[in-house]
Parts: sequence; C-alpha cells; structure tokens
Amino acid sequence: MPLPEKALIARIRRAVRNKAAIITGIGDDCAILRIPTGHEALVTTDFSLEGIHFRRDWHPPDAIGHRCLTRGLSDIAAMGGIPLAAFLSLALPETLPQKWVDEFVRGLLRLAKQHDISLAGGDTAQSPSGAMADIVVLGSAPRGKAIHRSGARPGDKIYVTGTLGGAAAALEMQRAGKKLHPRNFPRYFYPEPRVAVGKYLREHSLASAMIDSSDGLSTDLAHICEESGVGAEVDVKLIPRATIGKSSRRVDINFALHGGEDYELIFTAPHKKKVPAKIDGVLITEIGRIVKGKKVVLIDTRGERKELNPEGWEHFSRK
Amino acid sequence: MPLPEKALIARIRRAVRNKAAIITGIGDDCAILRIPTGHEALVTTDFSLEGIHFRRDWHPPDAIGHRCLTRGLSDIAAMGGIPLAAFLSLALPETLPQKWVDEFVRGLLRLAKQHDISLAGGDTAQSPSGAMADIVVLGSAPRGKAIHRSGARPGDKIYVTGTLGGAAAALEMQRAGKKLHPRNFPRYFYPEPRVAVGKYLREHSLASAMIDSSDGLSTDLAHICEESGVGAEVDVKLIPRATIGKSSRRVDINFALHGGEDYELIFTAPHKKKVPAKIDGVLITEIGRIVKGKKVVLIDTRGERKELNPEGWEHFSRK
Repeated sequence: MPLPEKALIARIRRAVRNKAAIITGIGDDCAILRIPTGHEALVTTDFSLEGIHFRRDWHPPDAIGHRCLTRGLSDIAAMGGIPLAAFLSLALPETLPQKWVDEFVRGLLRLAKQHDISLAGGDTAQSPSGAMADIVVLGSAPRGKAIHRSGARPGDKIYVTGTLGGAAAALEMQRAGKKLHPRNFPRYFYPEPRVAVGKYLREHSLASAMIDSSDGLSTDLAHICEESGVGAEVDVKLIPRATIGKSSRRVDINFALHGGEDYELIFTAPHKKKVPAKIDGVLITEIGRIVKGKKVVLIDTRGERKELNPEGWEHFSRK
Repeated sequence: MPLPEKALIARIRRAVRNKAAIITGIGDDCAILRIPTGHEALVTTDFSLEGIHFRRDWHPPDAIGHRCLTRGLSDIAAMGGIPLAAFLSLALPETLPQKWVDEFVRGLLRLAKQHDISLAGGDTAQSPSGAMADIVVLGSAPRGKAIHRSGARPGDKIYVTGTLGGAAAALEMQRAGKKLHPRNFPRYFYPEPRVAVGKYLREHSLASAMIDSSDGLSTDLAHICEESGVGAEVDVKLIPRATIGKSSRRVDINFALHGGEDYELIFTAPHKKKVPAKIDGVLITEIGRIVKGKKVVLIDTRGERKELNPEGWEHFSRK
C-alpha cells in the first residue's frame, strides 16, 4: 500500500502535541478528554468530500485541510463555545500522492494550532473513490450558557459578522474557469472561524440565538426562525456584501443572500443590548429584526417586501 | 433529490429520543452533552465504507447500521467506558433506495437503544460513490479509571472474551460465494459490543490493559505490547475458536489469530487477580501471559515457539 494507515497515523501523531484538555490522544481505543469543571461538552461533525465540498484541481491541499477543520470550529463558534480537540476520519484513494496528504494535514494542523487545539484521534481508511474527511470537534461551554438557534424573540435585532457572499462568488469564478490565487481570496481558501466573536457574545450575554453561515444567510436565518418559532425581516441594503480578489466591487446580492461557506456568524440580540460594531477586529452589522410569525421577509432598496425563501446551499451539487 | 438531507435528518430526529446525557441533540450547530461529574470524556470515531467494511449485496442494511455503531461502542467497551451518545455522518449515493436508508438507521438505532444511548447529531451529504458512514461515540469513565492499552506488565495474564475468528470465517464463506443467512451467523452480522464486560473489568479494577479485537488478535495484541513496552506469549491451544453457522466445528486457527471484526475484548490482568470465567454471560478465556521484551510468541500444540506477527486485518482490501 502506498499509503499505509500506520504510517499516516504515526505522522499525525508526531505532528500533534497533546494539549491540557487531552489526557490520552491518538494511540488508544478512545481519546480521553477533560471537560472543564462546570462546563458541558459540545460536539459537531462535518464531512468534507471530494467533488462535493472541494475539488483537488481547484483547492490546494492545505486549504482543503484548513476548510475541513473550519467547518467544525465554526459550529463551536456558533454556540459561543471553546474548542478543546479535533478528530479526523480520513479515507484516501490509493493513488493519492503522499505530498497531498502531508499538505492537507499541515493546513489542518496550522489552523488547529491557531485555536490552541490538537488532533486527539480519528480513523483512516482507503477510499474506494475520492478523498473524504469527516471532522469532529469537541468543545465546551459553561453549563446552560451555550447559545442555541432557538432563543430568538420578536423585537430582537439580527446581526452578521464580517461580510457575506465572498465564498460563493469565488466558487462561481472557478466554475466559470477562472484560476484563483489563494492569496487574493483568503476568506474563500482559508476561512477564519469566528470562535473569538462567538465566545465574546456568550461571555457578555449579548446573543439570544446564533448559527454559522455555512449554508448561506437565507437558509441559516430560516433555521433560527424555525427553531425559535419566529419570523424575520432583513433589510437588503444593510447586508454587508463581500468584495473579493483585487476588485473593490461588492459581490452580487444573491451570493450574499444564498451563498454558503462564508463561515460567518448570524446572531440575534435583544434590542436593548449594545452590540459593538467590531468584536475581535471583526465587523458586526445589524441587518434586520426578528418579528412574530414564521416568514423571513426581505425589504428591498425600494422598501418593497418579499418573502426570502431558503435556497439551501448544496455546495457543488447545487448546479 | 430522492434523498433530501432535510427529510433524512427529520426522520432520524423523530426516531431519536434524547437521553439524560443529551441536553441538546440534533437541530443546533453542536450537540450539548452532560459528562457525569468526576468523569472524563471518551471519544472514538470509525468509518464504515461500502466496498471496504461492507457490501450491499452481502450485508442487509440493518446489519450494516448495527455493525457501524458496534465499531464505536466496542472502542468505548475497550476503555471500560459508559457510552453516552452517538453521532452519525452519512454520505449516500443519490440512487440508494429510501428503504435501504430506513433499514440502516433502524439497525443502528436498535443497538443504540440496547445500550441506552441515542443519536445526538451528525452530518449528511450526497456521496459521489458508495455509501459511507462515520460513527462517533462519546462516552465517559471516572477520572483516571479508563483502561488503556499501555498498562500491561510482565507477569500479567492475557484474556479474551467470547470466541475469535467467527467473523473472518463467515466473510471467507461469502468470498467463496456462499449465501449466509444472518440468523445463523449472529455474531458476524450483528456483533454485540462487550460494553458490560468492559465496565465490569473497570469497576472491579481487574484489567491492566485492554483493546477490542476489531483488527484481529495478532494485530491488537501487538498494539497492547507496543504501547506497554512488553512482549507476550500465547498458547495456541487455549485460544477460543468460534464455531459458525450450523457447524459445531471450530474455525481454522488462522481466522482466530488474524481475523478482524469479532469485536471481542483482549485484556491483561495481574496474575493475582481473580478473573471470573464468565462476565455478563460472556465467556472469559486465559490465552497467555505478558513477558519482558517486545516479541509476541505463539506456543503451538507441540510446545514449539514461533513469533506471531501482526497480519493487520484490512477488511476487504486484505486480498
């Protein structure tokens, strides 16, 4: 086998230094982790599948590793949680070059280091087709303090971090055959999960509900409304649209409304709460308000109202 | 899409009732779980990939779901842990019949119920090729009490639960074209993870080291020796070989030595400890002893010694 599992595990094991939360990491039947006293455990799992979430000819391997972990960290961020450890299940085709695997792991571990977590375990297998990763992130939050999707109440304001639509617009350029340089599209190739922002919002009891924008504003805001039993109004002119590449032009509004994989946070806060304009250097923008009912309504630039239906970001299978 | 993700999630969500450990299950960015006071968290992840771990023409879908969860529960058992919740990441080909998915989930949830855990989350995606599942099981054990692979000491005795080689022998029959009826091969199609045995060994401080036999005796005992820095001697005549199907003949010794997926426990215990002959109705058999050095030696029926090399069970890719 060109990719012996044992060698891969040994390589990851060497690259990993156990953090305080990890009592036993790779090399036993289970990892053993310490959850801080008075905290609850947070667990999230996310696939990164070749042909669905990434393409090897479009995304450098270290960016694929980075994005793989971002998917998990962003879910921890959306609860206001603190990440403790990651677990990587990796199925690789026999023909995959060793260098690709090394770069994938390097990208993933670099982001892990930035968030002071390490790989505590996982699984490896030979893939019958493309490369497939499943990332698990374990985190924690003080008991009863994690921020749910279900806490939005009529009268709350709706906020987003950063800008929206950048990832979808960049993906569209790739679909159109453009070759993108990762350096010019950092939020697309190396999205930064908003862990510090989520933690700040939880520590300051600012957010009543929160979700990450991995599936796009229209879909993810609908999740908050569904779980909270409320409706929402969004002012289209307030939505912070991304600029991408070297252009200073804002991306098309449809990317910002429906494009996924920005890994920003969408949250609600009671209208009396003072939400800072920036948290941890990240722009916070008010885009609308929670209302009674079930509908998400978009108010366009002429003040006209129409229902905003979740378009359900489906990665590459969308088109 | 014939398999809309939302419908699948809704179906699983309906089938799942949250247990005490799960504060928030499916339907938020993360699951929130309560780890019992004074306990550490145990985490294990395992792939079940079509063509590698199962074949749809060989294994009924409920057995595939059952075996998928067994892989995780067996790892919890091997630490002496208590399972708390499972997470399922499931990527399915577009063409897969709905009935297959329902049966898969049914088999998995039936075993979950037996162990008083439920599905607390996961991910779904469309698979570019075969069906792929990644199971995560979260468990716990009292602080410092989980049983590691690394605790075996010279003089300890080596034990196994149940019988070995049954799964590999059944698989060999399928390879040879025989059609097996699941009812006649229960340990192969529906292996029972030894959670109660592992818990008993931990509670009675009997085991110094433990692992599950998912990769076969030769490979898994080598793991214990490697992590413990010891060698081992195994008496071939003591190894409890399985009988399978309607036959009362014991399987070939090579299946018992090298065959994987029996999901039994291999453990060591100081020679002064009194290990019961049965725990929770499961046969416990002494098969050898831990010695100084690094080698695993097999003592054959004529008393001759030869090194037992780990053959590294590779599921279907072995041949």
